[in-house]
Amino acid sequence: MGIQIPRGTQDILPGEVEKWQYIEKTARDICQKYQYKEIRTPIFEQTELFQRSVGDSTDIVQKEMYTFTDRGGRSLTLRPEGTAAVVRSYAENKMYGQTIQPVKLYYIGPMFRYERPQAGRYRQFVQFGIEAIGSDDPAIDAEVISLAMEFYRNLGLRELRLVINSLGDRSSRSALREALVAHFQPNIGEFCEDCQQRLKTNPLRILDCKKDRGHKLMQTAPSILDYLNEASSEYFEKVKKLLKGMGIDFVVDPNLVRGLDYYNHTAFEIMSEAEGFGAITTLCGGGRYDGLVEEVGGPDKPGIGFALSVERLLSALDAEGVALPQEESIDYFIIALGEEAEEYAVPLLQQLRRAGFSAEKDYMGRKLKAQFKAAERLHAKYAVIIGEDELKEGKALLKHLETGEQTSVELENMVEQLKSGI
Amino acid sequence: MGIQIPRGTQDILPGEVEKWQYIEKTARDICQKYQYKEIRTPIFEQTELFQRSVGDSTDIVQKEMYTFTDRGGRSLTLRPEGTAAVVRSYAENKMYGQTIQPVKLYYIGPMFRYERPQAGRYRQFVQFGIEAIGSDDPAIDAEVISLAMEFYRNLGLRELRLVINSLGDRSSRSALREALVAHFQPNIGEFCEDCQQRLKTNPLRILDCKKDRGHKLMQTAPSILDYLNEASSEYFEKVKKLLKGMGIDFVVDPNLVRGLDYYNHTAFEIMSEAEGFGAITTLCGGGRYDGLVEEVGGPDKPGIGFALSVERLLSALDAEGVALPQEESIDYFIIALGEEAEEYAVPLLQQLRRAGFSAEKDYMGRKLKAQFKAAERLHAKYAVIIGEDELKEGKALLKHLETGEQTSVELENMVEQLKSGI
Repeated sequence: MGIQIPRGTQDILPGEVEKWQYIEKTARDICQKYQYKEIRTPIFEQTELFQRSVGDSTDIVQKEMYTFTDRGGRSLTLRPEGTAAVVRSYAENKMYGQTIQPVKLYYIGPMFRYERPQAGRYRQFVQFGIEAIGSDDPAIDAEVISLAMEFYRNLGLRELRLVINSLGDRSSRSALREALVAHFQPNIGEFCEDCQQRLKTNPLRILDCKKDRGHKLMQTAPSILDYLNEASSEYFEKVKKLLKGMGIDFVVDPNLVRGLDYYNHTAFEIMSEAEGFGAITTLCGGGRYDGLVEEVGGPDKPGIGFALSVERLLSALDAEGVALPQEESIDYFIIALGEEAEEYAVPLLQQLRRAGFSAEKDYMGRKLKAQFKAAERLHAKYAVIIGEDELKEGKALLKHLETGEQTSVELENMVEQLKSGI
Repeated sequence: MGIQIPRGTQDILPGEVEKWQYIEKTARDICQKYQYKEIRTPIFEQTELFQRSVGDSTDIVQKEMYTFTDRGGRSLTLRPEGTAAVVRSYAENKMYGQTIQPVKLYYIGPMFRYERPQAGRYRQFVQFGIEAIGSDDPAIDAEVISLAMEFYRNLGLRELRLVINSLGDRSSRSALREALVAHFQPNIGEFCEDCQQRLKTNPLRILDCKKDRGHKLMQTAPSILDYLNEASSEYFEKVKKLLKGMGIDFVVDPNLVRGLDYYNHTAFEIMSEAEGFGAITTLCGGGRYDGLVEEVGGPDKPGIGFALSVERLLSALDAEGVALPQEESIDYFIIALGEEAEEYAVPLLQQLRRAGFSAEKDYMGRKLKAQFKAAERLHAKYAVIIGEDELKEGKALLKHLETGEQTSVELENMVEQLKSGI
């Protein structure tokens, strides 16, 4: 038996890859309009980066990272998400000193989490994300959210739900944290082990627990919205007002906490409401992370961003029955009969391609009929037939494969003739 | 101090990333013309894949791989090159049974080798490569070579040297191997340890040794060209004839062996001859690998391909002084003065972007003058100024930033007016 692909990963093959290309092009186009510039960080980072940014207490860091030691003894980790590395690069390259502010960046690339593989979930998956660092204007929160919504809209998704929340500033969260501890402490024994741990490390994340979401104390838990101080509350109101002004519908969910430790103020998720989309409905998650730059060793700069999975997006497109456009035809297929004709065919092919056409020939030693078949399979518009008889007259036959119409063309300067529209 | 990027890797930042985007677009465009389709394989593979394909005796496998054990106890390796995974995918997905043959694939993505970092050499680097699997027509060898040359040519490189060789078929190489052993055996003690090992495992690769290239026995070593049997020799002649027919210049170098174990028949390299390009002049390497598909567990199918490094390509472009085109302007910069104006600005920004324009506004609470400065830094064509006075009249001011020309436009339906070319 042959060597197989590693468990939990996938090859993206022709026929499927065109969808990925289209999605990426859509992402790049919208980022250009919104003035987010691409950044490419390495596939792996120092393990410490994720411990400090994603957070030691998260499932990602505790259970899901691909961590290894390189030949020089360094602990490296395949990136489990994109924000930490972008922020690391922002600090390391002193982008806070650039003249254009805020710094608006996007990335598209593979991320890695060691999870149990299941339908639509892979250990290597692709995220598209943006980060706007350096501004605490509520209008940038609204921009980040609107970019995600526009991106989905441009791809044809319609059944979306935007959920937002505010996690407030440090003092608001600290007030909530005390209230949560008071609320859960007496009965924490009824919660899962992770939640018992979370009570000590980050009680907010208890609200996010999937195992204990049915517990009655969850329904009565104190809400962050009751603990927002005036500045935090005002900030949240502005974000909501701006979203309304842009005609973007949303619902507020005070239990939206997000799985990572570094969020504050605005947090949001976009879900698919398409029927049959499955249990995991979150397509995109994001939020503000005003302490993160400092955490990785940079100055105190505010930031906000989102990340979305291309795999989930593809599932959502399927669920809504959206077909992405695919280009699937070529201009010319050259059919050469005999060795002499072959010697004309190879440079002709090159000239056609150089002139900007997509073109192909046979490389399997096929007979005339099988070559026509091959031309059809590639959806060639024209066949260029170079046979022995034609060759003697210095000509080739141009056949429109759909109409069957045939024209005789001179071999000399054929490409010029074709370019001028024969 | 902050957390730093892992040694031997680099961030590709805005200002530089546009070159990468341009190169990738050029690669995708030419592959479309030549009918190579993209394939995306995982970043890591089972370690065994590279041991069996790249070859146990190579430096790559012995010294340079990032190999680690995942949480399930599997030995995985970050891919050090692209061909092995493509061939693994070809076999595993039974692409040999597809109706369109040969199977023509390309990839662009990061590869990983643990080498000593130096100028222009990184531990994570990007390769663009193509593979044509399923045909042993010499015309496909010529096509693969011509695609690489056209790619460089389209990007503006001129000072290129194409070197080709034939490694012959199995029996030709076996005859050469015997001759090489007879030639080197008596004095093998004068060669490096690696070469002493190579004499046993793969004596052809002695010809490729960088340490011993000056040894006098290297100059007098038997040449593969003297050991090609008739079929191999004829194959090589055809490839050369087809290259000449396409007007592609080349030189034959019988010492061109390539670093990997799996090559046979056609081998080629493209070097930069630009002054000051540095010691490592090879930009692109490729060749035929007729036994490789079988090696990874598929049927006996012939294949040929090349791989090239984008980092080296960028160095070559620099050395030849070629500047890649860069787009660096936006359509509109909205300058809103006052809170009320801001509320108009955010939805207007969204409408402009939705209408296909690139547009930006201030997110830093800048004063009027600083906002104009920001607009200039982004090379905005127009500023849209919404001030208190304008707002009262339901108008905005449109200023062409280069000419200074100003027009007054209605806020209502502004985007429609701008689209129709006011």
